[in-house]
Amino acid sequence: MYFEEEQGFIKQSLKVEEKIFETKSKYQKIEVYKSTDLGNILVLDGNAMMSQKDEFIYHEMLAHVPICTHREPSKVLIIGGGDGGTAREVLRHSDISVDLVEIDQEVIDVSKKYFLGIDEVYKNPRLNLTIGDGVDFIANAEDKSYDIILVDSTDAKDYAQGLFSPAFYAQANRVLKDDGLIAVQGSSWFVEMDEHKEILKKMGSLFGIVMPYRYEMISYPGVNWNFILASKKYHPTADIILQRADLIEGLKYYNSDIQRASFAVPTYVKKELLGIAKN
Amino acid sequence: MYFEEEQGFIKQSLKVEEKIFETKSKYQKIEVYKSTDLGNILVLDGNAMMSQKDEFIYHEMLAHVPICTHREPSKVLIIGGGDGGTAREVLRHSDISVDLVEIDQEVIDVSKKYFLGIDEVYKNPRLNLTIGDGVDFIANAEDKSYDIILVDSTDAKDYAQGLFSPAFYAQANRVLKDDGLIAVQGSSWFVEMDEHKEILKKMGSLFGIVMPYRYEMISYPGVNWNFILASKKYHPTADIILQRADLIEGLKYYNSDIQRASFAVPTYVKKELLGIAKN
Repeated sequence: MYFEEEQGFIKQSLKVEEKIFETKSKYQKIEVYKSTDLGNILVLDGNAMMSQKDEFIYHEMLAHVPICTHREPSKVLIIGGGDGGTAREVLRHSDISVDLVEIDQEVIDVSKKYFLGIDEVYKNPRLNLTIGDGVDFIANAEDKSYDIILVDSTDAKDYAQGLFSPAFYAQANRVLKDDGLIAVQGSSWFVEMDEHKEILKKMGSLFGIVMPYRYEMISYPGVNWNFILASKKYHPTADIILQRADLIEGLKYYNSDIQRASFAVPTYVKKELLGIAKN
Repeated sequence: MYFEEEQGFIKQSLKVEEKIFETKSKYQKIEVYKSTDLGNILVLDGNAMMSQKDEFIYHEMLAHVPICTHREPSKVLIIGGGDGGTAREVLRHSDISVDLVEIDQEVIDVSKKYFLGIDEVYKNPRLNLTIGDGVDFIANAEDKSYDIILVDSTDAKDYAQGLFSPAFYAQANRVLKDDGLIAVQGSSWFVEMDEHKEILKKMGSLFGIVMPYRYEMISYPGVNWNFILASKKYHPTADIILQRADLIEGLKYYNSDIQRASFAVPTYVKKELLGIAKN
């Protein structure tokens, strides 16, 4: 038995033993599969979000790359990320407090039940949880109130579409401090280059430094996907990152070599992205 | 209709229009599929070897990483690689001549017919083709006669098994000059860690510098796979590579950032590989 997911011309099938949970929340279909080699797999509207075996890659890369790019972050806003993985990683940094805004309470409940350790994350006093729409939350947030925003969302469809709009990026720009930065889900070079370019273009009109970086999730079709980092001041491969990147305890993927490597751009991608900043 | 390939717990299916060629050679089953998005796909014994759309990644990474690590290579031995892609990349360097040893003439014939541009490679006067077994060829080659050896093979099974034996690596060590280096197909961290460690261990007992580096092939299950570079003298992320890496004309993937990035090792892999060199 397989969990199957199709993305363009690729269909990836992961061996599973059974579907152990399924519900239809107000926002999406939520499923959990027990797989043969990847532990439990969380699936939202048919798309694998994480498996227990590879979720550390996604969450470490979304959290620590922006955090180690910033000189001294203390206030982080996570939009989405109800599974708690990104918050877990951010909270490893003891001087950071987190506001987490998840639209779907059921994602949190399912994650607590089927993915180990998430319960602890939600008990951390440095985490403030809001159940609500990230677009509304950010529209009502104060000017220059965050160091870092992490958008831990599904693809740009249905209820998540607002998180990929120019209006949302403008609000993010407004609520970030003068040296703030934001990282968002940025699609994929090989499988979804058009979507990737679209996001880069929108963010490029607002932020001085806009750079894609790569992560890998064996449970995603195509495996290599991108986050996009947009920064008002700090550059992610400048040496400041070396100060802290290799000192974070308990990590399984991220280190300073990986930070630098994740920003390397193949030549065909450089050609594709040429001129985007100008438009 | 799909071309399907299973590797451990992952099955990847690529959309294809039809199978346009099939034969059973003396060594293997050879198939060519016409895909919807990746051009023609070459399949040996059920494993995708390349597609027209992503073959540049594999071939550029196998050829240019070792070449740009070496100070002044002039003689390169390619074992396998009958599809001509690796030779095409090596021959971009006008001061290099190539000996290519392919066991299966039919792979060459099929590649010439279904993969554009390969015919030109075989007409290049700097290429010497031998149809034969790479293991025999290297056993009969002179001491210290090559700067670089590239093993462009299938996985370690059936007729290719000899290319992964300690005896083969010892011969490679013998026929390489004192500053020579070799790159081989090195399996995959996430899908085949045991095989990867096995190859590292064998090469680690012979060469001072042994380092895995990563490449991506969208047409392979798991996408991220590894080559392993073993070197007698030169280090692949030392600055010498900057002299030439960004000056090679006509490339689509490789550049100096990619060379450095490809050697970055995630923390969980560092832990897995710890102590291998000692055994």
